[in-house]
Amino acid sequence: MLKKPIFFTVGPTKLYPTVKKHILNALKENIPSISHRSQKFINIFKETVFNLKKLLNIPADYEVFFLSSATEAMERIIENTVEKVSFHLVSGDFGQRFFQIASDLKKQALYYQINPHVLLEKQKFIIPKKTELIAVTQNETSIGYAFDSKIIYQIKNENPNKLIAVDIVSSSPYINLDFKRVDLVFFSVQKGFGLPAGLSVLILSPQAFEKAVFLNKKNKLYLSYHNFLELKKYALKNQTPETPNVFSLYLLNAVTKDFLKIGIEKIRKETEKKAKMIYDFLEKSDIFEPYVKIPSSQSKTTIVAQLKNGKKNDLILEKLKKQGLYLSKGYKNFSQTHLRIANFPAHNFSEIKQLISFLKVI
Amino acid sequence: MLKKPIFFTVGPTKLYPTVKKHILNALKENIPSISHRSQKFINIFKETVFNLKKLLNIPADYEVFFLSSATEAMERIIENTVEKVSFHLVSGDFGQRFFQIASDLKKQALYYQINPHVLLEKQKFIIPKKTELIAVTQNETSIGYAFDSKIIYQIKNENPNKLIAVDIVSSSPYINLDFKRVDLVFFSVQKGFGLPAGLSVLILSPQAFEKAVFLNKKNKLYLSYHNFLELKKYALKNQTPETPNVFSLYLLNAVTKDFLKIGIEKIRKETEKKAKMIYDFLEKSDIFEPYVKIPSSQSKTTIVAQLKNGKKNDLILEKLKKQGLYLSKGYKNFSQTHLRIANFPAHNFSEIKQLISFLKVI
Repeated sequence: MLKKPIFFTVGPTKLYPTVKKHILNALKENIPSISHRSQKFINIFKETVFNLKKLLNIPADYEVFFLSSATEAMERIIENTVEKVSFHLVSGDFGQRFFQIASDLKKQALYYQINPHVLLEKQKFIIPKKTELIAVTQNETSIGYAFDSKIIYQIKNENPNKLIAVDIVSSSPYINLDFKRVDLVFFSVQKGFGLPAGLSVLILSPQAFEKAVFLNKKNKLYLSYHNFLELKKYALKNQTPETPNVFSLYLLNAVTKDFLKIGIEKIRKETEKKAKMIYDFLEKSDIFEPYVKIPSSQSKTTIVAQLKNGKKNDLILEKLKKQGLYLSKGYKNFSQTHLRIANFPAHNFSEIKQLISFLKVI
Repeated sequence: MLKKPIFFTVGPTKLYPTVKKHILNALKENIPSISHRSQKFINIFKETVFNLKKLLNIPADYEVFFLSSATEAMERIIENTVEKVSFHLVSGDFGQRFFQIASDLKKQALYYQINPHVLLEKQKFIIPKKTELIAVTQNETSIGYAFDSKIIYQIKNENPNKLIAVDIVSSSPYINLDFKRVDLVFFSVQKGFGLPAGLSVLILSPQAFEKAVFLNKKNKLYLSYHNFLELKKYALKNQTPETPNVFSLYLLNAVTKDFLKIGIEKIRKETEKKAKMIYDFLEKSDIFEPYVKIPSSQSKTTIVAQLKNGKKNDLILEKLKKQGLYLSKGYKNFSQTHLRIANFPAHNFSEIKQLISFLKVI
């Protein structure tokens, strides 16, 4: 008999504990049946944007758009802000994916390969002058690498006329980003917000929006139904161009309100405490070690444990499953030698302790 | 005190009666938490495709792709099958939207304006030789116009080397389409399947897929993450390129199985009976009339009633709401003079009778 599962997978993951209640409320309120042009929808859209801005401290003049996935967010960012050249700081497969999307869309996509095992300050990348967009994966889910926000701001300071896009897919709402110093930020809801997949959030600075306007004037904008001008036209009416995932938007608003009630500072502190518990265990373990060893580069939300001496993870993952503990295996090349552990607001201290105790005796 | 609402809106609409149960089962089975690369997801994907093919009688060699909305389906169809010229048979605003998307994507988009009040057989449109894709809105949700399938097949017979795309967004699963005689067919789940919005289904013939391969070879394919080659690469593994709306896919499979149990023939006959009840009432009414008067052009699933003598619908919609009956107002130019009534599998005879009785005494 399998135990009640706890999903420590890096997303989709454990639902935030209030989600079931919110789903039942949504059904009671007929949310899946309301028109996406109705006043009720307009209120949900407006509230969600308001609450997200409050929770994440997003400036009033920044836009908030809703898309269907983080992959779509990458595509729309490239389409709307890059005429010719993008530059990608790549530390793992999701940074690589952003680069590949730019390249597939026929942009001159340049990249610098970050070495996750060398202090970021010591890695000297030169961003070519012709670069229009700099793309950074702030939290690289594939290897548990966190790109230091201070370096992000420094890059923007040194390149005020270039746009900077920041992937916080699996670090939001933990990561405390100074939105005024970045231009395009995106995350999806099945990670830190503990919701079902099928919705992503794209936040953009006035400067980023102006780039789309500029490209449009030059007749160089790709006029998708999800181009920024169209998205903004509808956002001004608190709507989306297409029939969106209304249900998910309602749930995002509900969980954002829960987070506001708890207080983002508390959520962030708890995330750090739980991360410390996991890293402390990994440091002392005989069979595991953190894959990323430089503390300032260690992700607090998606923690990657490496098996020592090239050991394989299959038996461990099986044993964990029998205890009801679901972890993600490693990504691509590391699929057999890494374990990836989510540490999102949904994961409470007792669950983290339970996981660690089990990993100790495995 | 408002009565328990019944949504006759044309989509989003009343949830199919089993959906709440399926949502609770999904939560019990942790569907929102499973990985989109897991065996459990693979099984859901595989089953959904299998059951949809069975329900709608889709040929084995046709592809089934999952996208986020019907609007996205239109965009992906244009990107993947049109190098230069598309031709649109437009009877209302959704056909117009398909045309506009092609035009925005810098295609030479041509169109013929269907007159909904003239027998379709008498409308002579000439499809230019250079046309690559012919787009037809089989069920035009904006005005309740149904494009006769026989004419669709006739067009394909006369243009075997051109692709034909058919919008059945709000007529599926009622419409009994011979998929072998069409190339690209799409619908979204918040209409006839009675599900929350946020997922659409795109079905394509081998000939349609080959067009994308051909464009790719010519270096003319727009290489979105949702291009057909990429979608097929993942579909072969029973997966999607991005993290999809897993929850919604599970629900689509569940409702498709419900439909299979009832039998599609029964669902179709009942839809026709209910449609006849509504049209019979409209024909006899003193204050309403069907907007589309030619029987072979009357939609069976999204029925549009016009107020006689240019009367306005606002008071009627208000009165209906007080009875808990939610209808859609008219689309764009007709917003104040039309009522749009959904007649989907979710709407039972007793609800249709209730609506008609109330409209009789209004």
